[in-house]
Amino acid sequence: MDEKANGPKLTKGSRPIIDWPTNPMVTPLLTDLYQFTMAYAYWKAGKHQERAVFDLYFRKNPFGGEYTIFAGLEECIRLISNYRLTEEQIDFIKSSLPGTCEDGFFDYLRGLDCSELEVYAISEGTVVFPKVPLLIIVGPVAVVQLLETPLLNLVNFASLVTTNAARHRFVAGKSKMLLEFGLRRAQGPDGGMSASKYCYMGGFDATSNVAAGQKFGIPLRGTHSHAFVSSFTSPNEIIEKSLRSCDGSRTCEDFVGLVQAWLNKLQWSPPLRGVFGDTNQSELAAFASYALAFPRSFLALVDTYDVMKSGIPNFCAVALALSELGYKAGGIRLDSGDLAYLSTEARKLFHIIEKEFNVPGFGKTSITASNDLNEETLDALNKQGHEVDAFGIGTYLVTCYAQAALGCVFKLVEINKQPRIKLSEDVTKVSIPCKKRCYRLYGKEGYPLVDIMTGENEPAPKVGERLLCRHPFSESKRAFVVPQKVEELLKCYWPGTSG
Amino acid sequence: MDEKANGPKLTKGSRPIIDWPTNPMVTPLLTDLYQFTMAYAYWKAGKHQERAVFDLYFRKNPFGGEYTIFAGLEECIRLISNYRLTEEQIDFIKSSLPGTCEDGFFDYLRGLDCSELEVYAISEGTVVFPKVPLLIIVGPVAVVQLLETPLLNLVNFASLVTTNAARHRFVAGKSKMLLEFGLRRAQGPDGGMSASKYCYMGGFDATSNVAAGQKFGIPLRGTHSHAFVSSFTSPNEIIEKSLRSCDGSRTCEDFVGLVQAWLNKLQWSPPLRGVFGDTNQSELAAFASYALAFPRSFLALVDTYDVMKSGIPNFCAVALALSELGYKAGGIRLDSGDLAYLSTEARKLFHIIEKEFNVPGFGKTSITASNDLNEETLDALNKQGHEVDAFGIGTYLVTCYAQAALGCVFKLVEINKQPRIKLSEDVTKVSIPCKKRCYRLYGKEGYPLVDIMTGENEPAPKVGERLLCRHPFSESKRAFVVPQKVEELLKCYWPGTSG
Repeated sequence: MDEKANGPKLTKGSRPIIDWPTNPMVTPLLTDLYQFTMAYAYWKAGKHQERAVFDLYFRKNPFGGEYTIFAGLEECIRLISNYRLTEEQIDFIKSSLPGTCEDGFFDYLRGLDCSELEVYAISEGTVVFPKVPLLIIVGPVAVVQLLETPLLNLVNFASLVTTNAARHRFVAGKSKMLLEFGLRRAQGPDGGMSASKYCYMGGFDATSNVAAGQKFGIPLRGTHSHAFVSSFTSPNEIIEKSLRSCDGSRTCEDFVGLVQAWLNKLQWSPPLRGVFGDTNQSELAAFASYALAFPRSFLALVDTYDVMKSGIPNFCAVALALSELGYKAGGIRLDSGDLAYLSTEARKLFHIIEKEFNVPGFGKTSITASNDLNEETLDALNKQGHEVDAFGIGTYLVTCYAQAALGCVFKLVEINKQPRIKLSEDVTKVSIPCKKRCYRLYGKEGYPLVDIMTGENEPAPKVGERLLCRHPFSESKRAFVVPQKVEELLKCYWPGTSG
Repeated sequence: MDEKANGPKLTKGSRPIIDWPTNPMVTPLLTDLYQFTMAYAYWKAGKHQERAVFDLYFRKNPFGGEYTIFAGLEECIRLISNYRLTEEQIDFIKSSLPGTCEDGFFDYLRGLDCSELEVYAISEGTVVFPKVPLLIIVGPVAVVQLLETPLLNLVNFASLVTTNAARHRFVAGKSKMLLEFGLRRAQGPDGGMSASKYCYMGGFDATSNVAAGQKFGIPLRGTHSHAFVSSFTSPNEIIEKSLRSCDGSRTCEDFVGLVQAWLNKLQWSPPLRGVFGDTNQSELAAFASYALAFPRSFLALVDTYDVMKSGIPNFCAVALALSELGYKAGGIRLDSGDLAYLSTEARKLFHIIEKEFNVPGFGKTSITASNDLNEETLDALNKQGHEVDAFGIGTYLVTCYAQAALGCVFKLVEINKQPRIKLSEDVTKVSIPCKKRCYRLYGKEGYPLVDIMTGENEPAPKVGERLLCRHPFSESKRAFVVPQKVEELLKCYWPGTSG
């Protein structure tokens, strides 16, 4: 999945110039104060250069599910590669620590960077599971500690929202268009930007967020709102009514009149007689006006007044007028009501019109649905049966409403080659000590069977050799596996000075 | 509540230089594509300069509650006051719209700013209720429409998380210290920054987020993590053991020895004999080391191994050694287990020690609790009885886990002096037309009784005059009110060129 994300190419052993993190607010100060108090205490105790190994992992898959998609790595590497404190930042840290702190520490901060770090990570966009480290950071304990908070911040939401998007894709199916429409309800400006980026990574097709389109090259989608419709009063207010045909061969001088003629034809054609009453004229004006502006991509929001009695016939009249001039209408968007019912009724009507007026392809006119969609409502729509081609999903997707946080943690597992463990009465909170290697074992059919962790110096699993895999916290869960392929999950993304 | 937020002073009728929004990612492109397609359609129809009135409001209080705190206004005004599209942005918009769009539109965008806008708003930090507009934006319809998405983005999460913080403050009570510790679990970098800013506005006392401390002047708090504790192995690894007394009059050459002597005294003092066994030596080393670094603000995380058997006695030994040198320890932090029980037991012990060793004030040693706290767990702790002085709250606070989004909307209510309404089968979704004035009416005791909306030109409610107030969507809800004070809720924050 990671091919979609743009940004620097990270190659083992080389040092490309890597951009600053997408959000300029990501700085070395975007961390918890205790990282600096600890750094001082490590420095004061002469321990700051001790070689520590930290694992970044989560304990439980989100949304009650069975998988997570790892994301956020690129931003982490961007921070690590540019990590340097400015004088201004050091001054602020000094003012935030007790006045008794020695000046030598601030000199140490002045020289601090991530050149002594090694970063091992699973590739961005990979399906991952609890307890397996997504990132392993090796280096001087004080430096690694300073990175704890920003790395968690950059991975937690990124992985959560990518997973959420992937789950929506799974429910919607491969054939549907999925549009991320969440910017207005996102948790702040880069809640919106991150959601756009990572929903695309998780399998969405496009976003409404123009800034994300520019920054990440994500395709953009969008048409008009209810306000656009209600800003019109009647077709009389449209002054410039002419529209050239698609092939440029002729000009229709009164497109609005053409639309009204089509509306009349629709109302009186035998199969549709009595189906529509009078449609809303401000809506008709808005649609005609929008079509005059965008004749090649006319997509209308049809639920401002009444979908079946006004929105759909008004849309069809405009679409048929466009069709007469050689244009193909983009489709409709439904933003309220019973989406299964309305999409099915709209589809029926489109087919009747295709046949009645001999407009090839009209039956397949695209139907987009929005309005507080989420995994459950998509699933319910599938069960009811619907004719929606594209879903615009906002709030529930981008805020991860069903579970607003992923609980990634960052645990010390080794210092000075000594294993370290965090104990807890809650066995799921006990950390797994030692620097690890992690492998994904594949079976005969090419599917992955299991991920396993070994100690750094243990032999790697071998293809064709039977291996006993144990669950780390459940004695009863164990299985023999004969891998047909062995993939090492963590690769070096930042090699330190030795790279 | 808004006094706490720093930033520009906004005065009616004047035009101070106002900073760019806190997050540089907030630009005119941080909007939905359809705002630009609509702007083009308005422009093409010659409607773009029509004077529109939009209300920004929410429909339902969050968290199942009865109030909301409005926040985000300062960021909105920062965007409005600096709103200008760059050539690069215009090029990107051009590339995102159909090639048929006329060049004149992009010239129009080149000259576009918010000088023709008027912005009326409720003061940031005010308690607000559904349906009452938080912002009223008046101006050319195309410009106001372009602002819809960023304004919603800047208000939605800000108001949500401020409200969440205020609710936590309400449950915790006025006397408790509330610390925002959410950066690592927030929805992206400025999910964290916004949460720090707005939790402070909502009544928190401090944050762990250093960048928020620098940017907003919010007090910082933080000590050390479990990793710090487990990075030590034994007190023998501490090399520099000397500590000068608080008044500078003498130097203790072996502070670690002094700590161990106090641990011994604690273990053998009559009221405590048999209470503690052997404490964890790596923890003792970490605490002693931290105290050597921060003798004036020694605050220890006591649950890495076993709170009652190791963490608390180790803390007490270090605190008593510090006390002998004239220092007062900062306290303990509990991050797991039964916080009510552990805090109560710790408090008992502190009182015993105060008495036994004659250390005045030791009984009041501060107890901080963290570990996945939220409104419910605070309430449960209150009901059980506890001795916690300060709460560190993260995930549930900053991600608004209980309800991850506030549904603010932005509705056209008037265009060219004509009222506009958005109809819906769902009565709560029907918009209230017309430009409004909103008042808060106060009763005899000085408490607010009700907020009312009137038409722009209706007479204002008068002190002492009986007034019939009707609920907009419930005929049965109505009340006569005789206000003792009338407060106009919306003030002009951006006066347009006429200001």
